[in-house]
Amino acid sequence: MLDYTHVDGLSAADIARLRAVYEPLTQSVRELIDATIRTEVDADAVAAAKAEIDSATARLRAVQCEGSFGVQTGADGQSMPWGNAVIGVRNPSAPPLVIHKDGDGGARSDFYLGAAFEGPPGHVHGGVSAKILDHILGDAASKPGAHRLTGTITVRYRRLTPLGRLHSEARVTHTDGFKTYAVGHIADATGITVEAEAVFIEPRWARG
Amino acid sequence: MLDYTHVDGLSAADIARLRAVYEPLTQSVRELIDATIRTEVDADAVAAAKAEIDSATARLRAVQCEGSFGVQTGADGQSMPWGNAVIGVRNPSAPPLVIHKDGDGGARSDFYLGAAFEGPPGHVHGGVSAKILDHILGDAASKPGAHRLTGTITVRYRRLTPLGRLHSEARVTHTDGFKTYAVGHIADATGITVEAEAVFIEPRWARG
Repeated sequence: MLDYTHVDGLSAADIARLRAVYEPLTQSVRELIDATIRTEVDADAVAAAKAEIDSATARLRAVQCEGSFGVQTGADGQSMPWGNAVIGVRNPSAPPLVIHKDGDGGARSDFYLGAAFEGPPGHVHGGVSAKILDHILGDAASKPGAHRLTGTITVRYRRLTPLGRLHSEARVTHTDGFKTYAVGHIADATGITVEAEAVFIEPRWARG
Repeated sequence: MLDYTHVDGLSAADIARLRAVYEPLTQSVRELIDATIRTEVDADAVAAAKAEIDSATARLRAVQCEGSFGVQTGADGQSMPWGNAVIGVRNPSAPPLVIHKDGDGGARSDFYLGAAFEGPPGHVHGGVSAKILDHILGDAASKPGAHRLTGTITVRYRRLTPLGRLHSEARVTHTDGFKTYAVGHIADATGITVEAEAVFIEPRWARG
């Protein structure tokens, strides 16, 4: 069974305060990731930047949690998947996706992928598209309090996806006992570039 | 057609020198990403760290390439996919994977996934597994100078993959004209956790 930690006493106001402290830090690190890939400054400038980065890391590591962030839950049941590799507001390597759900098994997101997500020159890494589709289809297939894990996903590449502003959406097609089926795609301004279908499983330990 | 830039005059020694300048910077940013996710320091310490990070970013942005890194090629034909989201030695959000190929259509890698790659608490995001499998199967299916792009990939999750030390490998099963078929998996110390099969396509513009 997974450890969805309940954080005693964290009210909605506490969570908002924590987010206000840590989210701007995360956004700064996202900018740094982009600059690290694209920089052409000389060795002396790199050394000066590296010294500042190592100093910042030491400050942050002065007090830190064991292992990974996990998925914490506040007193009112608010989920805080802040370390998540796709949506985590505290994970600098997440784009992050902000996913909007409708009440009908649908999920959608508009997002931007820059230099950190490259595979073929100027284009999104095919694996990054698969990662995003896994998440958004899974989100469409999940309901609050009901954990679903990917069983199988198939991703079809119609054409290369350019880096830049993109859109993704997914919807549930049907359910069969503890299995939920979903489809979705990624699109650029001119249409669909990658599509996916998947089955999600409600784990045995989570079935009521 | 994709822009695999030929960098005039970059010898093997030049490439080694550039790597020695930029790879330690990238590794420092990887440490910072981990610390950013896991830190529990207070708002004042976060502000001090953020100021150093923003200063480092400004230093690095003083001279930078347009857009993304791309895939550059040195004078002797050495490929430099240094911005790549999975293997890029200059991409802090890449683990990065170091992939060893045998002469027989096989590829393998031992790697470590920490807090930045989390989905379910303590475990690898399913989409991250898909991303890695897309890359390693594609690497098995490719030969030097022959670009292959993912057509379709299917990923099956046998069980959750724990964060930590992992292994992945892939091999070509057969080819059919411009299509190459490959299979592979990710494993932890006790066995296979995720498996994949995919077909890769040699793009029309790259066929000889």
